[in-house]
Amino acid sequence: MPGADGADRLGTDYGPLAAALADRDAVGVVAVGDRFDDDLRYLTRFSGPDRDYAFVAGAVAGSDDPHTALCAPALFDEQARREFPGDEVRTDRQGDPAGVRAAAALADAGHDSGTVLVPQGIPHDAAVYLEDAGYEVTSTDAVARARETKTDAELDRLRRVQRAAIRGIRRAETVLAEATVDADADEVRWNGGVLSTERLRRQVNEVLAAHGVRDAGNTVVGAGATAADLHYTGTDVIRPGETVLLDVSPRGPDGYYGDVTRTFAVDPDGGWERRAYLAVEAAREAALEAVAAGVPASTVHEEAAAELAAHGFRVDSDEVGFTHSTGHGVGVSLHEGPSLTADEPLEAGNVLTVEPGVYDPAEGGVRLEDLVVVAEDGFEFLGEYPFSLVPRERV
Amino acid sequence: MPGADGADRLGTDYGPLAAALADRDAVGVVAVGDRFDDDLRYLTRFSGPDRDYAFVAGAVAGSDDPHTALCAPALFDEQARREFPGDEVRTDRQGDPAGVRAAAALADAGHDSGTVLVPQGIPHDAAVYLEDAGYEVTSTDAVARARETKTDAELDRLRRVQRAAIRGIRRAETVLAEATVDADADEVRWNGGVLSTERLRRQVNEVLAAHGVRDAGNTVVGAGATAADLHYTGTDVIRPGETVLLDVSPRGPDGYYGDVTRTFAVDPDGGWERRAYLAVEAAREAALEAVAAGVPASTVHEEAAAELAAHGFRVDSDEVGFTHSTGHGVGVSLHEGPSLTADEPLEAGNVLTVEPGVYDPAEGGVRLEDLVVVAEDGFEFLGEYPFSLVPRERV
Repeated sequence: MPGADGADRLGTDYGPLAAALADRDAVGVVAVGDRFDDDLRYLTRFSGPDRDYAFVAGAVAGSDDPHTALCAPALFDEQARREFPGDEVRTDRQGDPAGVRAAAALADAGHDSGTVLVPQGIPHDAAVYLEDAGYEVTSTDAVARARETKTDAELDRLRRVQRAAIRGIRRAETVLAEATVDADADEVRWNGGVLSTERLRRQVNEVLAAHGVRDAGNTVVGAGATAADLHYTGTDVIRPGETVLLDVSPRGPDGYYGDVTRTFAVDPDGGWERRAYLAVEAAREAALEAVAAGVPASTVHEEAAAELAAHGFRVDSDEVGFTHSTGHGVGVSLHEGPSLTADEPLEAGNVLTVEPGVYDPAEGGVRLEDLVVVAEDGFEFLGEYPFSLVPRERV
Repeated sequence: MPGADGADRLGTDYGPLAAALADRDAVGVVAVGDRFDDDLRYLTRFSGPDRDYAFVAGAVAGSDDPHTALCAPALFDEQARREFPGDEVRTDRQGDPAGVRAAAALADAGHDSGTVLVPQGIPHDAAVYLEDAGYEVTSTDAVARARETKTDAELDRLRRVQRAAIRGIRRAETVLAEATVDADADEVRWNGGVLSTERLRRQVNEVLAAHGVRDAGNTVVGAGATAADLHYTGTDVIRPGETVLLDVSPRGPDGYYGDVTRTFAVDPDGGWERRAYLAVEAAREAALEAVAAGVPASTVHEEAAAELAAHGFRVDSDEVGFTHSTGHGVGVSLHEGPSLTADEPLEAGNVLTVEPGVYDPAEGGVRLEDLVVVAEDGFEFLGEYPFSLVPRERV
């Protein structure tokens, strides 16, 4: 059955594409991009090369199921056949631009004109090739929408990568628990040297690699002022007492991301960081309590913001206090729908981060983040890990 | 000076953009994309989020230097200012699409109409926004061309990541040297268990992580039939005597890639794999000997192909023998210009892989790959590592 999960292969439900084709009276859905295009990854499950290839779902007269094709580079033929859950891998017209190859696949499916639906970010040249071939190109959010609801097989992938991400956090917490304070130099030391954010990051990334996922450039480690910088991936010395924020979001072999954040302090003095931690803990609790199918997504954010405001933190600034949204969807993109600032109701199968935080460039940053799947009557964690401001050895 | 290297910051030479603006009588160059867009990474040095942002180089009347701006997401403001070597980080018009923000930056630079040059793969919606704002959008290869010639600072980054890649290969070779043969089970064993391509890959990726680079999903490890699959990243048991092909191409913190391939066999019997190895070794030598500024790029490929043909391997098939080109440019993309199938002369500062290989799905695959920078009178390795079919412990 086209699109279904195989023994080793992740399937894709092409039903939403069929619905969009019928709804818009279109002849096909076309996506073009390279290995870094997440719509294409979702539609094809093919982790192809760093040059453009194409996916085509062509409407079939008298059938509800479109005919799905992957126009793959010839050198990746075998891999494409192994990974693509759709109907056909095409390697004809090598050397032609992906947009031209997509038009040829549509023509072979019996469509030489009509409306073609494309994701908004399709490369301009591909859109122009389709127009030149006689199709009317119009954008669709059907792919982005389809991605928002996860299948059991996708949840399985998300759980696996989240487990690896948590192992990374565990390693970092253990390193911080083992670390000592050099009060004279105002530095945290570990294993014979000064502990920097980059040293700690490499400890995390080694664990990710050992568990078969990759850091994807997303292992955020900040300390003090750089913990207030939401996505710090640079080198900074870790000072005693200041907040150390770790946001670990690796990508697994099927393209799904994990995402977990914990914040620690080595020898905290009980000032700002303690107040911030308590506030974020309470906000996390309030936000999680709001998560359930049917609840407007923005409610989750509002609950977290109300709790942080009640604890005396600003929620209206870009620089101090709660400066971001409470979370985002996670899938083959690290950030995807649903948005927790939108009023649309959450649906069972949505996978969300819940990640309240407060920041002050003069003090540091505190964020706690977990990944959950929305259920009819609440949610389920895709991985659990304890939290405390003072790091403990966890083995 | 705009565009120059800073203390910690990599610069970008905007001279080729200035030349393209003058040459095409254009008012600006615009690039739009997310963190996965390599043109944007090169132009901005900003490793931004996974949603679109924009780069704008606006022509300045009476000056040869364009005014360069990065339209960044507000949440990444600090990081953008740290990383962008151009003139201005703009955080106005948050919430507007990147194409709209680019048009606003052009208007502020005094241009409300005229020709705008864009890289070919610009997202379709961004091109349409620019056209709607009154500009004529036309594609340029100026960015791709500029990327082909590396500065000393870029070569420094490439050397560093290539060194880490080589450490990964060294680890794999050591594991293979330590491995033992279980003749009854027809398996290679290491450290108490069967050695699979995935176990070996994780050993490599741990070393990459420990040295501050990431595997980027590009750590190819194939054995036997899967070594004949050019980009195998799956799990396969390693059998005694069969070729184990490792192609390691991590990405460094500034976005530059390394790329090195070695092939080994545990307890080879001196058949196909030995013949293939000798042929590839000779082809590597012949190809490297041809590399120099002024030499048509395709000559390098032809020299390798001639040597492999002389050793009795096919060079005309997609499946058996020498099935690919001898190499490609490497930079912020793993595959970029110059192409070794083109007749254009190599230039000093081009960074190339030289990677002849032969494959036979019934036997295995052998490839040897090194990374070199083209010089006026030859080339220089960006990292050196010995090679032998039988693995040795290298420490």
